Amino acid sequence: MTFSYNSVAGRSVERIQALSDGIFGVGMTLLVLDLRTPALEAVHGERSLLAALASALPQLVMYLMSFMTLGIFWVGQQTQLGHLERSDRHLTWINLAFLFAVTLMPFSTKLLAEFYPFRAALLVYWLNIVALGGTLYGSWGYSVRHGLLRPGTPPGVAAAVCGRIRTAQALYAAGALLCAVDTRLSIACIVLVQLNYVLAPSFSSLRRAPRPEQKSQPPPQ
Amino acid sequence: MTFSYNSVAGRSVERIQALSDGIFGVGMTLLVLDLRTPALEAVHGERSLLAALASALPQLVMYLMSFMTLGIFWVGQQTQLGHLERSDRHLTWINLAFLFAVTLMPFSTKLLAEFYPFRAALLVYWLNIVALGGTLYGSWGYSVRHGLLRPGTPPGVAAAVCGRIRTAQALYAAGALLCAVDTRLSIACIVLVQLNYVLAPSFSSLRRAPRPEQKSQPPPQ
Amino acid sequence: MTFSYNSVAGRSVERIQALSDGIFGVGMTLLVLDLRTPALEAVHGERSLLAALASALPQLVMYLMSFMTLGIFWVGQQTQLGHLERSDRHLTWINLAFLFAVTLMPFSTKLLAEFYPFRAALLVYWLNIVALGGTLYGSWGYSVRHGLLRPGTPPGVAAAVCGRIRTAQALYAAGALLCAVDTRLSIACIVLVQLNYVLAPSFSSLRRAPRPEQKSQPPPQ
Amino acid sequence: MTFSYNSVAGRSVERIQALSDGIFGVGMTLLVLDLRTPALEAVHGERSLLAALASALPQLVMYLMSFMTLGIFWVGQQTQLGHLERSDRHLTWINLAFLFAVTLMPFSTKLLAEFYPFRAALLVYWLNIVALGGTLYGSWGYSVRHGLLRPGTPPGVAAAVCGRIRTAQALYAAGALLCAVDTRLSIACIVLVQLNYVLAPSFSSLRRAPRPEQKSQPPPQ
Repeated sequence: MTFSYNSVAGRSVERIQALSDGIFGVGMTLLVLDLRTPALEAVHGERSLLAALASALPQLVMYLMSFMTLGIFWVGQQTQLGHLERSDRHLTWINLAFLFAVTLMPFSTKLLAEFYPFRAALLVYWLNIVALGGTLYGSWGYSVRHGLLRPGTPPGVAAAVCGRIRTAQALYAAGALLCAVDTRLSIACIVLVQLNYVLAPSFSSLRRAPRPEQKSQPPPQ
Repeated sequence: MTFSYNSVAGRSVERIQALSDGIFGVGMTLLVLDLRTPALEAVHGERSLLAALASALPQLVMYLMSFMTLGIFWVGQQTQLGHLERSDRHLTWINLAFLFAVTLMPFSTKLLAEFYPFRAALLVYWLNIVALGGTLYGSWGYSVRHGLLRPGTPPGVAAAVCGRIRTAQALYAAGALLCAVDTRLSIACIVLVQLNYVLAPSFSSLRRAPRPEQKSQPPPQ
Repeated sequence: MTFSYNSVAGRSVERIQALSDGIFGVGMTLLVLDLRTPALEAVHGERSLLAALASALPQLVMYLMSFMTLGIFWVGQQTQLGHLERSDRHLTWINLAFLFAVTLMPFSTKLLAEFYPFRAALLVYWLNIVALGGTLYGSWGYSVRHGLLRPGTPPGVAAAVCGRIRTAQALYAAGALLCAVDTRLSIACIVLVQLNYVLAPSFSSLRRAPRPEQKSQPPPQ
Repeated sequence: MTFSYNSVAGRSVERIQALSDGIFGVGMTLLVLDLRTPALEAVHGERSLLAALASALPQLVMYLMSFMTLGIFWVGQQTQLGHLERSDRHLTWINLAFLFAVTLMPFSTKLLAEFYPFRAALLVYWLNIVALGGTLYGSWGYSVRHGLLRPGTPPGVAAAVCGRIRTAQALYAAGALLCAVDTRLSIACIVLVQLNYVLAPSFSSLRRAPRPEQKSQPPPQ
């Protein structure tokens, strides 16, 4: 009896989750290494220390922005993987491509923060977001087409996840296009889209407190 | 049938735990990179090597202090998450905010160690502790209000966790206020509070050896 | 009653998986630290920024190659561990040897990228791949011989995994031998072998869409 | 009804395992950052590249030694934790102290490799091993005394784990004492002890192939 290697490889969703948590964890703490304490000899009193700290604020904001972006895509991937019954080798590689884009995010964010008046920096940042969204979209599409979702998953979930990614990518693309006017307008627009995905659900949840979806079957993982 | 994306996103407590362990793990080993071995050319004998190692002691103590602080908040978050039945998207983001504060802790500790006579450094360190405590408090409050706790959780647990955070934050704030007198007094006070949270339970456990709480239902995770 | 320490040590497959995910996660994000943003003073306009980014492309390709190699061996180890019922102390150490080779991969890839015309660099890279393949092969052979596989594992799996590693290593060795002609030929050949293991299964799956192996018992982990 | 915070904190063995895997994973890959590829301008041909690589060999050996030491203590801690039914707050802090010693190991190994003729370097290295062994011993002793072991654990296990640590520490101490004669003798002795713990079980297992301990109850984790 012969047996295809590819039919037994990459079956574990849990391993993808664990590797993802490792890569996101390292990526989220990596940029903090660039936050350097002020040079001892440059600080002569409370006032100059405060000034030195204030001059590091843009770096902190850039780090927060990178953390937020990684957070958005971490939640996005978590939601997808939580609905999978199992994985296969191809899905594993699509997710590895996604994780590759994740590891590039700190670089792109830093590039944008340092060269924000340049369209090339904005283009790189936007391409990174497209790569993240594209691989996530591909991962979900593949899972749906090849029957990897948990049996009990309501059919609406598949469409909701796809719609979410499409909407977000359209907003990001619109923001990126604004760089024809001014790159700072683009950045502001992209940051607003990101903040919307972090904060908006909290606002909307205030309006409809006893949420009906708590009755839906929760994914075990 | 339409389906809200937010109702299916961020449901997994395990993923928050795994990401947290990754971020804490990296954060706890990050500062060790600053512990450099003495320069080869500066060491001429046993005596000068010992002197070089002794001069690195303050850095080691600073690293130990940072490790301890991260340990305290790791235990705190673990205790919370261990009582949760499930998560939702908002709780996930509150925990991501907590993890962001975690990644800043090595920077704050280093800043304080290098600029301990300055109130600005102490203020930054204290603000970081407030951010850690505040997000943990918010995470717990949200979980209790939205019924995310395990069904069997004794009602006293919720109050005990809240009280713990409030007491600790009050003690930290009192310690920070002492910087009006002297920042070193503040630091000593904060370190004592931290040591109390690491060691004190061991002392008290010596007094009441066969602990009654072993009868309470242990959380599976 | 005496008890051998070695008979109770290293029994957990899950711990090997978790440590592996941590090491692979760090290794996969480590090389990104070498991707530096262009120096601010060297960039005078869109054109010079694009030129600076283009000059960093070889580094990005090298990083992608290293990521891909680690991905291939991560999938390979995952497939093995997913079929194990339990581990023992020896298997744990074989896997630690494998992980040691994993941590060296970024170094070998970087060496090859910087010194690609040199046979010594190619030799080091190839030795690293041999070490990865050899430890994986040893790990699987040990597991099969000592009955550590899950009871329900079809007998064909063992042969498929062994055959896979042997074929891959033969292809890598053939590629390495080509350095007698030209090292660039060797590198091209090795990269093609790697791309084959990443992409080829996707092509073949297009031909036989409803795959029969979905009926086989999926490993729980 | 009041509730003690300390009675509900730090109950999860799995979280200690996950944090440990994260810290060990980072620690095991950290030292590889010191393995630098040779400077491009210093290499003029195959011969000089080989010479440059050969001169990096001591660093590789040092890294292997550090990896091996961490591996030994990772297996040791894994064995302990695999026998625990649950944890409590004190055990969590004992393990955090152990993990602190783990994060210092790369520093100690590097110090010893660079200053091997100096007794002070050997002393630091040995103190680190004592700290690792001491916290592991304390962790196990605490677990046994406070009834944290799984109900089905054979009584011989507790003694085997303790005996193992005591024997190893006695051998390490004897090796360290040899520095009165020559530090290189000490290092050779310590490395032999470590190699013994990595390899020896493999030799002994060749003698008694169908091992009887496979009948003993395997720990689920």
